[in-house]
Amino acid sequence: MREKLTKFIENKWTQRFILFVIIFNSVILGMMTSNAIMAKLGNLMNLLCNICVWIFTVELAVKLYVYKKQFYKDGWNIFDFIIVAISWIPTGGVFSSFRVFRILRTLRALRLITQLERLRIIVQAIIDSIPNVSWASVLLLIIFYIFAIMGTTLYGQEFPIEFGTLGKSLFTMFQLTTLEAWPDIARGIMEKYPLAWLYFVSFILISSFIVMNVIVGVVVNAISEISEDVKKEKQKKTLKNSDLEIELINLKEQIQKVENLIELKKQ
Amino acid sequence: MREKLTKFIENKWTQRFILFVIIFNSVILGMMTSNAIMAKLGNLMNLLCNICVWIFTVELAVKLYVYKKQFYKDGWNIFDFIIVAISWIPTGGVFSSFRVFRILRTLRALRLITQLERLRIIVQAIIDSIPNVSWASVLLLIIFYIFAIMGTTLYGQEFPIEFGTLGKSLFTMFQLTTLEAWPDIARGIMEKYPLAWLYFVSFILISSFIVMNVIVGVVVNAISEISEDVKKEKQKKTLKNSDLEIELINLKEQIQKVENLIELKKQ
Amino acid sequence: MREKLTKFIENKWTQRFILFVIIFNSVILGMMTSNAIMAKLGNLMNLLCNICVWIFTVELAVKLYVYKKQFYKDGWNIFDFIIVAISWIPTGGVFSSFRVFRILRTLRALRLITQLERLRIIVQAIIDSIPNVSWASVLLLIIFYIFAIMGTTLYGQEFPIEFGTLGKSLFTMFQLTTLEAWPDIARGIMEKYPLAWLYFVSFILISSFIVMNVIVGVVVNAISEISEDVKKEKQKKTLKNSDLEIELINLKEQIQKVENLIELKKQ
Amino acid sequence: MREKLTKFIENKWTQRFILFVIIFNSVILGMMTSNAIMAKLGNLMNLLCNICVWIFTVELAVKLYVYKKQFYKDGWNIFDFIIVAISWIPTGGVFSSFRVFRILRTLRALRLITQLERLRIIVQAIIDSIPNVSWASVLLLIIFYIFAIMGTTLYGQEFPIEFGTLGKSLFTMFQLTTLEAWPDIARGIMEKYPLAWLYFVSFILISSFIVMNVIVGVVVNAISEISEDVKKEKQKKTLKNSDLEIELINLKEQIQKVENLIELKKQ
Repeated sequence: MREKLTKFIENKWTQRFILFVIIFNSVILGMMTSNAIMAKLGNLMNLLCNICVWIFTVELAVKLYVYKKQFYKDGWNIFDFIIVAISWIPTGGVFSSFRVFRILRTLRALRLITQLERLRIIVQAIIDSIPNVSWASVLLLIIFYIFAIMGTTLYGQEFPIEFGTLGKSLFTMFQLTTLEAWPDIARGIMEKYPLAWLYFVSFILISSFIVMNVIVGVVVNAISEISEDVKKEKQKKTLKNSDLEIELINLKEQIQKVENLIELKKQ
Repeated sequence: MREKLTKFIENKWTQRFILFVIIFNSVILGMMTSNAIMAKLGNLMNLLCNICVWIFTVELAVKLYVYKKQFYKDGWNIFDFIIVAISWIPTGGVFSSFRVFRILRTLRALRLITQLERLRIIVQAIIDSIPNVSWASVLLLIIFYIFAIMGTTLYGQEFPIEFGTLGKSLFTMFQLTTLEAWPDIARGIMEKYPLAWLYFVSFILISSFIVMNVIVGVVVNAISEISEDVKKEKQKKTLKNSDLEIELINLKEQIQKVENLIELKKQ
Repeated sequence: MREKLTKFIENKWTQRFILFVIIFNSVILGMMTSNAIMAKLGNLMNLLCNICVWIFTVELAVKLYVYKKQFYKDGWNIFDFIIVAISWIPTGGVFSSFRVFRILRTLRALRLITQLERLRIIVQAIIDSIPNVSWASVLLLIIFYIFAIMGTTLYGQEFPIEFGTLGKSLFTMFQLTTLEAWPDIARGIMEKYPLAWLYFVSFILISSFIVMNVIVGVVVNAISEISEDVKKEKQKKTLKNSDLEIELINLKEQIQKVENLIELKKQ
Repeated sequence: MREKLTKFIENKWTQRFILFVIIFNSVILGMMTSNAIMAKLGNLMNLLCNICVWIFTVELAVKLYVYKKQFYKDGWNIFDFIIVAISWIPTGGVFSSFRVFRILRTLRALRLITQLERLRIIVQAIIDSIPNVSWASVLLLIIFYIFAIMGTTLYGQEFPIEFGTLGKSLFTMFQLTTLEAWPDIARGIMEKYPLAWLYFVSFILISSFIVMNVIVGVVVNAISEISEDVKKEKQKKTLKNSDLEIELINLKEQIQKVENLIELKKQ
């Protein structure tokens, strides 16, 4: 029984069927955003959506039964498990007013990533690059925090929209980091505080520098991995060179022997 | 006859003439956008434009006759063929109301690319980099799709311009990816939904990360090609090293012989 | 006494406590931006803030006593010293109207960088990349200056907000370099001076080119450091090759000896 | 006489004096943008400015006399010559209404580049990277041209500000390439032509791709130069390896001799 299920779940066609269901479900979820479609076919859409969830649940149940503890060793399986579990959070009845619960089911489209290997590789690469980026992010957050406190203290009272609270200031800092519409904010404040350009220009220079540093770090890291391959290639060759050395040592020993022999003969 | 035509079409001066006609045609197409010029010289312009199309058609006909099946093996020939074929779509009479047909003739300026080798190389390089980019684009599209559904569900009713339909939301996602004017949209929505910053900041971070990943990938790929050249250079040298090894083996054999001889003499 | 203090100040738990005080102080400084909190707990906040400053002062005093002249050899110690010294600038009484003094205490959050090694490394890397960037910055400033003078002379009278004085023009140049909202300014001026696009397009192209040159320089520099590691690896191997040579020379000498011996015997 | 002048002009202190005059002149030019200063000290400023021009002229005259034909071999000398020549274009009298002539003297600040070697190196590097960029720029211009014609044909009548003439369309294309405020233009046009997003999204994707290609090209080129250095290093070592081969051949010959000797003895 279990073997049959293993074969079934690992079958190429089963996996293609699951892939099809994920895409089909994503399309349905997209169509459900249209009020016109929901007015006409709302019940059908909900039904199809539920069928998809059932298929996913059965798939995962089979996998859980088949792989047992092995199931939890693959991070992507856990990822699938969470997404399907979220799908069972009730959205009707008392919960119907929480639109946030309803949007969580959209995450099911993310299962495409677990199903397609090439996407998994890219996501893995992005996740792997996070450690390189994380400490620079901490530095950026400290700079954000300092400038946000400064901004709130200096401009909070007169410009409540941008610098009213620490939270608003932090959001403004994020906006300044993306450089988006910063002159609008800066010119507005500079009318009252002519020296405010110091605040904005210094923040933009510092944050750009850190972001540039992060990007350079990621590029260099990616390149150093290639370079490491080159080094390994090299080590193999060094090995060959050491082989050559051994040859030479042998050679020397043989010549030594010849010498000895001749020495012997000479006596 | 066919040999003469081959010589004629591959002649340096013929190719320069075609290049000149392409540039001349592009200039004419540019002048035809001016209402003032068209009012005065409209007929002349149309005539010149038609002459150019005729020249291109004759050129391609000759090439087709000369190269026969070889013609279709070069992608750029097919590209030229399609562009010239498009030029023969009627734009007058019943079609005159479709401005879209009329703008297609502008594509003729693209023939400059097929005619200049350096441009062909660049375009080829860009096309070659697409496979590296395509899977990351699929990932980006999935993220677009999920956030577009979320946006339409959450903000569609109150902000119909940005999130009214799934299509509008997808366009807004593209806008957010270019970071352009995102604070305008975000601040507008945050007035009603104070937690909307989570939606915008997370989308910007995720999409920027993926785009950065794409660019890093292209850079690293371009560099690894150089690195590969270095590796090949190295393999050549390894060959030399193995030559050295053979020398050593020969050497050892000769010494062995000397040894044997001495051994023999000793007996 | 001094030894005990050295042990105490270099103790892992003392350093963790200082780290905690820095974070605690940063949180307090963040909370002090809220008028609601200050109205209720203003005195408590000020008290906690002062306690933190006292702890930092004692810590630095101990370090000064313990390390003596060694203290000033570490740039980060001096950095800490300045930040704590700034904290003692009076902010109350006659100075209470200078908000600028009050915001300087926010810099204390920067002590996180001196306390966490990973952050110090990143900041060090950013500081190290400044020499590569500084001359390009001088070039950029010259271009800024020239275009600012041009802008003030040409458009200063009609567009006083953007080009009224040399200072305003320089700020506008900085804005143009970030590309932010440049079409707003350019289109406004182009209505009066149709040729103004020459000014804006040329400035954007030149400044983008210099900025690109700076970024490429930083990337290449970071990569060349990896490449240098590769070179060093190589030099080690070259050494090995020269070892091989020595072996061969020895070999030759020994063979020479054999030859001589045989020669001798022959006589 | 000529030798003395050569010594004088190449003297370290003369060059520092010229550097000082360039900076002094730049400051004066900056101050001349202020109406307040010009009202009070206008005559003094003009006088100082003229003195600087005279000093530059004398410097160049001496250089011309000293180096003769050698003078024209250095591109930077010609650059200086043009800038000083421009300074003698009359700006008063009938020409006083042409502000363009007056702004050309600002270019004198560019002499800083010719005077400081580090800046010359950076400018040289930027100029050297132009050939890598130029063909991609031609490609970009062709794309600009095609989309500008399309834009003028499709949207010229209804949106005269952005697409009224071919020139305006080209400017809009440049704006779209910098991504600045593109959603404002796109959303405006999409209200009338819902399919206009195709035009904008495709243009942004194509132009971003080409620009990315250019930047990657510059980065890869800069890196390949390092890589070339590595290759040269390698070739030196290959030479050493061939030295090793020669050693081995010598060795072999010597062994051959030993063998022959023994053979001889055996007979």
